[in-house]
Amino acid sequence: MTSAKKQLTPVPFTAVRFEDAFWAPRIEVNRKVTLPHIYKKLEETGRISAYDLNFQRPVPSPIVLIFGDSDPAKWLEAASYSLATHPDPELEAIVDRVADKVISAQQPDGYLNTHFTVTQPEMRWKNLRDWHEMYCAGHWMEGAVAHYEATGKRKLLDAFARNADHIAKEFGPNPGQRRGYCGHPEIELALVRLYHATGNRAYLDLSKFFVDERGARPHYYDLEARERGEAPAKFWAKTYDYCQAEVPVREQSKVVGHAVRAVYLLTAMADLADEYNDESLLKAADRQWDNLVTRRMYLTGGIGPSQHNEGFTEDYDLPDETAYAETCATIGLVNWNHRMLQFAGESRFVDAMERGIYNGLLSGVSLEGSNFLYVNPLSSSGNRHRVPWFECPCCPPNVARTVASAGKYLYSTSADGLWLHLYAGNSAEIKLGGQSVKVKQETLYPWDGAVKLSFGLAQPQTFTLHLRVPGWCKSFSLSVNGAAQDVQPGAGGYLAITRAWQDGDVVTYTMDMPIEAVWANPQVRLLEGRVAIQRGPIVYCLEGVDHGGILLDQISVKASDITSSFKVEYKPDFLGGAAVITGQGRVIDGSSWGDALYQAKAPAEKDIQLTAIPYCVWDNREPGEMRVWLRQG
Amino acid sequence: MTSAKKQLTPVPFTAVRFEDAFWAPRIEVNRKVTLPHIYKKLEETGRISAYDLNFQRPVPSPIVLIFGDSDPAKWLEAASYSLATHPDPELEAIVDRVADKVISAQQPDGYLNTHFTVTQPEMRWKNLRDWHEMYCAGHWMEGAVAHYEATGKRKLLDAFARNADHIAKEFGPNPGQRRGYCGHPEIELALVRLYHATGNRAYLDLSKFFVDERGARPHYYDLEARERGEAPAKFWAKTYDYCQAEVPVREQSKVVGHAVRAVYLLTAMADLADEYNDESLLKAADRQWDNLVTRRMYLTGGIGPSQHNEGFTEDYDLPDETAYAETCATIGLVNWNHRMLQFAGESRFVDAMERGIYNGLLSGVSLEGSNFLYVNPLSSSGNRHRVPWFECPCCPPNVARTVASAGKYLYSTSADGLWLHLYAGNSAEIKLGGQSVKVKQETLYPWDGAVKLSFGLAQPQTFTLHLRVPGWCKSFSLSVNGAAQDVQPGAGGYLAITRAWQDGDVVTYTMDMPIEAVWANPQVRLLEGRVAIQRGPIVYCLEGVDHGGILLDQISVKASDITSSFKVEYKPDFLGGAAVITGQGRVIDGSSWGDALYQAKAPAEKDIQLTAIPYCVWDNREPGEMRVWLRQG
Repeated sequence: MTSAKKQLTPVPFTAVRFEDAFWAPRIEVNRKVTLPHIYKKLEETGRISAYDLNFQRPVPSPIVLIFGDSDPAKWLEAASYSLATHPDPELEAIVDRVADKVISAQQPDGYLNTHFTVTQPEMRWKNLRDWHEMYCAGHWMEGAVAHYEATGKRKLLDAFARNADHIAKEFGPNPGQRRGYCGHPEIELALVRLYHATGNRAYLDLSKFFVDERGARPHYYDLEARERGEAPAKFWAKTYDYCQAEVPVREQSKVVGHAVRAVYLLTAMADLADEYNDESLLKAADRQWDNLVTRRMYLTGGIGPSQHNEGFTEDYDLPDETAYAETCATIGLVNWNHRMLQFAGESRFVDAMERGIYNGLLSGVSLEGSNFLYVNPLSSSGNRHRVPWFECPCCPPNVARTVASAGKYLYSTSADGLWLHLYAGNSAEIKLGGQSVKVKQETLYPWDGAVKLSFGLAQPQTFTLHLRVPGWCKSFSLSVNGAAQDVQPGAGGYLAITRAWQDGDVVTYTMDMPIEAVWANPQVRLLEGRVAIQRGPIVYCLEGVDHGGILLDQISVKASDITSSFKVEYKPDFLGGAAVITGQGRVIDGSSWGDALYQAKAPAEKDIQLTAIPYCVWDNREPGEMRVWLRQG
Repeated sequence: MTSAKKQLTPVPFTAVRFEDAFWAPRIEVNRKVTLPHIYKKLEETGRISAYDLNFQRPVPSPIVLIFGDSDPAKWLEAASYSLATHPDPELEAIVDRVADKVISAQQPDGYLNTHFTVTQPEMRWKNLRDWHEMYCAGHWMEGAVAHYEATGKRKLLDAFARNADHIAKEFGPNPGQRRGYCGHPEIELALVRLYHATGNRAYLDLSKFFVDERGARPHYYDLEARERGEAPAKFWAKTYDYCQAEVPVREQSKVVGHAVRAVYLLTAMADLADEYNDESLLKAADRQWDNLVTRRMYLTGGIGPSQHNEGFTEDYDLPDETAYAETCATIGLVNWNHRMLQFAGESRFVDAMERGIYNGLLSGVSLEGSNFLYVNPLSSSGNRHRVPWFECPCCPPNVARTVASAGKYLYSTSADGLWLHLYAGNSAEIKLGGQSVKVKQETLYPWDGAVKLSFGLAQPQTFTLHLRVPGWCKSFSLSVNGAAQDVQPGAGGYLAITRAWQDGDVVTYTMDMPIEAVWANPQVRLLEGRVAIQRGPIVYCLEGVDHGGILLDQISVKASDITSSFKVEYKPDFLGGAAVITGQGRVIDGSSWGDALYQAKAPAEKDIQLTAIPYCVWDNREPGEMRVWLRQG
């Protein structure tokens, strides 16, 4: 990257209408099932009525209740996105009611947090490290921006602008202000969005202050702990790495601590690098990106292996079965990479984004839309199963807002033209060079690599079409109006076709999508001798239900069979429509083993027909074993 | 088994003098290093001064302090065994001082427990489920018996006989007595020993009462919980299986709950079956034995995979790296099998005993004698390392008493003759048919399978010599005074040679001891495709220190290489003297892999020279990776 200014601008999701078998049904399920389901759960768990400010709660309260305001915020953000593409008066009425209720809870000084208004008003802003006050505020700012953009109604936006004004008064570098920042990054990226929605640069500066102040000494979390009468050393996580505040962000080289916090902060860093043309910030983020993508990311785009800190541990520590890989963390990974992508249009960021979206993110929600995974392991003994809700329900509304706005990941524009990042069957209307360009994609992607792209233009226009060549794609073919094009990807991994595009022009782009055998870096402990099946961006897994409920590690495969004899078939009526891979493996045959627990004789083996399904749709049938990394035979 | 009466009688360890390179140095280290080390730690942690009854302790107290009396008890038992074979006036003086101090803490009514005398006298006998009062008493009874047998001094024995009298008054089936029993079995087996030492049959009956009462309804632990004002359902373990009291012992079919508790109870069940000729009790124990040995035992004789309950989980749940396999549990396994063996002389019990002793038991102590493992996993990432002491220091003195009395596992006598169970270089003087028979074994066992056995007899005697053919032994040869014998093992797995034995008779018995590749039952999850190296009773492992510190799972081996080309060499100066196995494997060579975390290309492999060492001596050098179950190449 040569500049810290974003050269690309994402095309908003509102410009994209999915017409495919992958996203369109998921967005419909999200709208019809997931959003009402989450709202019901929010009501049942008192997260809506909390804004009546008349609840009772023990002190100390469970942390999930303290930051409970963030859950309706994310739901309202998701609902607003849905309203933006699918107007729905009934849903809009509920959203309005919730917005009014939330606004009614705002204090005269602009403060707005139910827990610290009702239960512990004397503790307001007293524990930024642990109590998520700014995190909740940040999610509401995002919700308010979404609500405003979807409905044009300013009331919620104005309320959270007042809230931001209040925070900007309390915190900052000036005399009389506190130099604090939230233990759970989120407000930083939200303030950038609030700045864009309101034009008030004070929010941008506040975001920059929060990011720049992080890790400064004397440490704010030490100071506030002592003010509470607590020894700073009593902090359970033992290190401020947990909240990415052990060192200033520009000195951080590895991605550390709580994974969601890390990627939310990195997202804000990317945004601020652009806003302030701050190369040091972008370089710092890119350094962590490098560490993450070459050392600390699961094949599925899951991040944060450890339950202990819901986050990162050591380089190459990526155990499959005990993977934490929180759904929210992959969502954050996707959004951070989406931001990084806009600087120079580098495909490597879409590779990470795509890995996350089509695997460890969508695995977070069931196909029918009302059951969720918080933790996304790459192997299961059958003890994992999606559930309707969590004590800490951060993931469901996070998935909902992501699916509702999935269209935003597809396209960008730049001074010279149009960028296609992710492929999907859709019609989009994109503002480019002063006119509206209609783009229609016909493709079965991600189940097939052939994309037919048609342009609708009121008048011819010369621009560059940038087509991403995914990292997984080793060969492709391209034609424009039937004429084969000999074009190779540039340094950023995109094909660039510059011409005077005319109405009705058709680009046919076929990415070869063979079934591949994938290995992990040999430094990843416990994945030695194992191989995974991947096709295009889709990581596959075996499920017990397709293999007679045997222990899946009894199965072994030859990598050469995966690439030479395994077959793929798109099944429109199976698991919501999925390309299923079948092939032959070997299985240990315990039938002649007998009753001995150990013996000096190898167990027999026999052939077995294997069925591999996309990881993102595992556990949509009866619960059982699941395994991504297969034993090589 | 056709009778519930023991047909064999163990030859006491005092009759056996080790003259070998395996046990003799271990017993010497135990005497010279381990016993003083433990005593020092007991003093440092206030477990000796506790008997001055003037300590202060918070309420509620950590459970490890509540049952702290059991630690000096086991140490005194170990020290007494040592005195029995190695008189040592200095050690005897310390033992006497400790005994006097303990006796001085006895209450007028016979009660003797420091915690419930000093800290919570009002809670005496109020929580049998959790508080280990009888467990501590049981260990002191064992210590007192050992002390009496070693020194002839009755004072400690008399004190704990009074203690047992007190308990027998409080607990039992009669009106005015409570029908309670200890949550941690131990007193049951101790009371049998106390009965043998004192001749007082009341102790035997009390033991039987405790065993028979276990699991009866209404449940004693429910009743006592309610008396304490606690809801029985609040019991953390959720099931009385944890303490083997969910159902009556005769109805229990699987070995469940806390592993040490399980095997201590089963030991008492074996003893009581014999004492009362109670076939139902023996059958119940044998049923659990079958479940344990065919479903729930590690290759090393470790038992109890889970840290959660320090115990058993499900059939075939034997993960290697997270194995709990507490040292004390394997000690209990060994002692229980030693009891079961005496019924009919079945080699299967020695197979389990031997597996435990030479692997998961001796791994509990370092070769230099002052560092211990509590947990004995079969794979380590390098995060395990022996330590001098534990907050819960049950294992160190348990190892010490076991090593000090190891001679007891070797021989038994029966009406018809002499039984050799474990082989070891030693001289023994055994009472048989009214005369003293001298037996001398010359062997490098367990490092070699050749045993030369010489008899010393004042006059010829006709008896049957029963020689065990270990379960691991597929072929052997036998000669008497140079004349080859064609004899096959009987149903119990022993060779029987009946003759008029004469002074100077020599039996040469050679068990072939090839290097073997061993597999686990295919139902053991996560061991699929893995193989272990075993030779004779010794399970081998790889250590990082012998392989350049690479990740050991990068190594793969061919089972056919293990059995055909791997070599064994006894190295007298390596790891305390050990047979080391070497051979060629393959290793993943990451040097050409590059920086990618995942790629569609297999990593290179190359040959590697492997060094496998006995599992029981792992972690005696620098800490690092260790692995028993190797990946098959």
